[in-house]
Amino acid sequence: MEFHISLIGRKDLSGEIYRQLRRAIVDGRLRPTDLLPPSRELARRLGVSRTTVTVAYDRLAGEGFVSSHVGAGTFVSERVPRVSGLGKQHRSGGILTPRDIWETVPLAAPFARPARFDFRSGLPDASCFPHDAWRRLLEREFRSEALGGGVYADPAGHPGLRQAISRHIAISRGVETDPDSVTITNGSQQAIDIIGRILLNPGDCVAVEDPGYPPPRRLFTTIGARVAGVPVDEQGLVVEALPRRARLIYVTPSHQYPLGVSMSLPRRIELLAWAEEHDAAIIEDDYDSEFRFGGRPIEPLQTMDTSGRVIYVGSFSKTLLPTLRLGFMVTPPSLVTAAHKAKQVTDWHTSMAIQAPLARFIDSGGFARHIRKVGGIYRDRHERIVQILARDFRAYLELIPSAVGLHVAAFARNASADQVDAVVQRASNKGVEVQRLSYYEVDTPPRPGLVLGYGAIETSQVEEGLRLLLASFKE
Amino acid sequence: MEFHISLIGRKDLSGEIYRQLRRAIVDGRLRPTDLLPPSRELARRLGVSRTTVTVAYDRLAGEGFVSSHVGAGTFVSERVPRVSGLGKQHRSGGILTPRDIWETVPLAAPFARPARFDFRSGLPDASCFPHDAWRRLLEREFRSEALGGGVYADPAGHPGLRQAISRHIAISRGVETDPDSVTITNGSQQAIDIIGRILLNPGDCVAVEDPGYPPPRRLFTTIGARVAGVPVDEQGLVVEALPRRARLIYVTPSHQYPLGVSMSLPRRIELLAWAEEHDAAIIEDDYDSEFRFGGRPIEPLQTMDTSGRVIYVGSFSKTLLPTLRLGFMVTPPSLVTAAHKAKQVTDWHTSMAIQAPLARFIDSGGFARHIRKVGGIYRDRHERIVQILARDFRAYLELIPSAVGLHVAAFARNASADQVDAVVQRASNKGVEVQRLSYYEVDTPPRPGLVLGYGAIETSQVEEGLRLLLASFKE
Repeated sequence: MEFHISLIGRKDLSGEIYRQLRRAIVDGRLRPTDLLPPSRELARRLGVSRTTVTVAYDRLAGEGFVSSHVGAGTFVSERVPRVSGLGKQHRSGGILTPRDIWETVPLAAPFARPARFDFRSGLPDASCFPHDAWRRLLEREFRSEALGGGVYADPAGHPGLRQAISRHIAISRGVETDPDSVTITNGSQQAIDIIGRILLNPGDCVAVEDPGYPPPRRLFTTIGARVAGVPVDEQGLVVEALPRRARLIYVTPSHQYPLGVSMSLPRRIELLAWAEEHDAAIIEDDYDSEFRFGGRPIEPLQTMDTSGRVIYVGSFSKTLLPTLRLGFMVTPPSLVTAAHKAKQVTDWHTSMAIQAPLARFIDSGGFARHIRKVGGIYRDRHERIVQILARDFRAYLELIPSAVGLHVAAFARNASADQVDAVVQRASNKGVEVQRLSYYEVDTPPRPGLVLGYGAIETSQVEEGLRLLLASFKE
Repeated sequence: MEFHISLIGRKDLSGEIYRQLRRAIVDGRLRPTDLLPPSRELARRLGVSRTTVTVAYDRLAGEGFVSSHVGAGTFVSERVPRVSGLGKQHRSGGILTPRDIWETVPLAAPFARPARFDFRSGLPDASCFPHDAWRRLLEREFRSEALGGGVYADPAGHPGLRQAISRHIAISRGVETDPDSVTITNGSQQAIDIIGRILLNPGDCVAVEDPGYPPPRRLFTTIGARVAGVPVDEQGLVVEALPRRARLIYVTPSHQYPLGVSMSLPRRIELLAWAEEHDAAIIEDDYDSEFRFGGRPIEPLQTMDTSGRVIYVGSFSKTLLPTLRLGFMVTPPSLVTAAHKAKQVTDWHTSMAIQAPLARFIDSGGFARHIRKVGGIYRDRHERIVQILARDFRAYLELIPSAVGLHVAAFARNASADQVDAVVQRASNKGVEVQRLSYYEVDTPPRPGLVLGYGAIETSQVEEGLRLLLASFKE
């Protein structure tokens, strides 16, 4: 016997003997026609009953790994040798390698870094989330009817939720749609994935804002698209810099991520005209425009679009919680069926366990109340940050005007990217997490600067956090 | 004024005037330098207050659509003409077209057809689902901690659930793994999508069972792979028929979908050896093997695999509910990081709202109890169906032996595919839904036959349903 059977700390002794022997046979330590120890002997050696061993032997025999010959004992089967060649590579590695592209994609880890003063952008305040109300909604809605019984649901999503969303965005954003054009997705990221699936062929060019939100760019790259960064100025995406070959343009017109500017009306008109002329599609990601602290909202591209080129994408990650994974998209009629098919082959549909509660939350007015409540909190933080930056950071930062959403951005004054990096590092050492604008670079290094999110930081922490940030500049 | 403003049934009158004027400007019905009617006149015409109109005009002016000149009136802006060219295509269509491949993909609609006698396969009995227990779990687990606060969660999934699953499959299926190798997905379909993303380049060949489960095949086609059907005999996939160029092989060894056979041990050994020789990866979809009514389970390929070529995929769609969208995959260590990255760019992670409750359900033993309970019910239905087929259908059907899962299949005796189609149609007219084997064809028409699922049909309905099916044969 070349191999060791260990039963220390094991419970299912017979199963353990079976598994360890089988593994020895499969990886070649026990070879065809090798004789297993007599069951009586092995039982004695292991200090178990003989039945424990014979049950294991019987199971191996039943599966063809061994055969018993009366009087001669139990042998490893002759048929098994073909496995032995497999045993060279140890399973702890594995021989498969992912496509090269995955080497270039970082695993984003916002989930791994808690911070004392958390100015990271793109995160809402979880402490504001109405957990109690939602527990009641779940209690009420987690029933066979809302879950759709035992059958797979409509890939487009829960009918009541699609209706609630179409009403909500008509009122809050002037988006013109009907429930049929709404597809529920696992957050906006999946909406973007589905759009890529239905529109993009390998090698197609996708234009994204530069600096811009990284996850869609990473997604497009991994599905075989070529991604081109397009500059952003104070009016938003610089339309005249779009590469002629762009088939799809990903933009955040309400509140550019990360600079925070709103795309001007002339620029919107120009973008729609460009798409028309170059036969391109536009993804309008309206990820956090529910929070508005001044100014008048400009109409979404979706509403101005008369040729059906704009796909409007929304998310509940900023208004509720990112971990719910709830978003949606509004597709032009020509793409609706393909969107549903693509959602179906991707993952059938979004979990019904959370769709019915969300529908009820919106319909009951709870969602609108929640937005108003947290909007007031975010407004307060926004004003404090803007005020303190204007008062204390004039030598270091030039605030980019913005009156929407969950973050502001600022260019550094007279500082190189390296110097900004050093400031961010010093701030981090003090427990202050802020993001560098350079993190959002696509093709061209942006002007050095910072992004300050206020979704995650408590209002009472803003002042102290910025004081520490200022100290990091002064050091 | 070329256009009509209608306020019938509208509430936000000022907003409505604004929107209708803006639309007329955008789509070119009102042109640059066109004069709008004086606000006083329009107010009178529409029967609204003058303020209602001036608010709308101010908003249009604020957004640059119109400009007001004192004494001269309000004109459509000169900058807007660039939009007018957009107005030709009416929005109700839309100019974008999906990639051609989507034409070939049907929108599966199991969700749309209720049936009196529902023998459709792949569906569990929703009436057995422990809704009350799950409502308590949701009530208990829907809290900030379990939801991960405001930050995005680990793309691999809830740590407790990954641990619970890794223990569960070690015990129930002998799968050797650790929580790190488990990635939580939205059902098995998304696991397959993620595997495709990390391994497949455009044009790569994927081998699937023929007949086989359609959704993975559709998925592979839409992501640019070439799909080859490989015959299945009474021992499972015919390994020697695999195309040499196959990079990835999708199989259902425990319970072939749809034929119901279990892949024999020699065939499993042969398949692993083939993959080794041809440097291919294997997806082992173990979708419903929790329900076993006889015979001894053969080890999963994953356990026999010593070179890390097998990705094991599991689902809670058959054991709990498909609408929860919960599944998982166990990847060889060499693919773990890429799997997490791919899950992250796809949709960040699976909703945390349902992961913590499922972890608790497994850990508390509730899941194992549930499997035992529904397993007994399915065993009963399985036995009834097998018995009745043997007793009454001998002239029409040849049952394919199977002792696992939620369906059995049978070849038709002396009947063409057309004749089977006619039987299925007649049965459907009587309220009996069964599936044709031909529905699962990939490249080669299978022997004519039927698939009978017993997840959805009540036990008490089996006999009457089969009586009506028999009548459909006899007609």
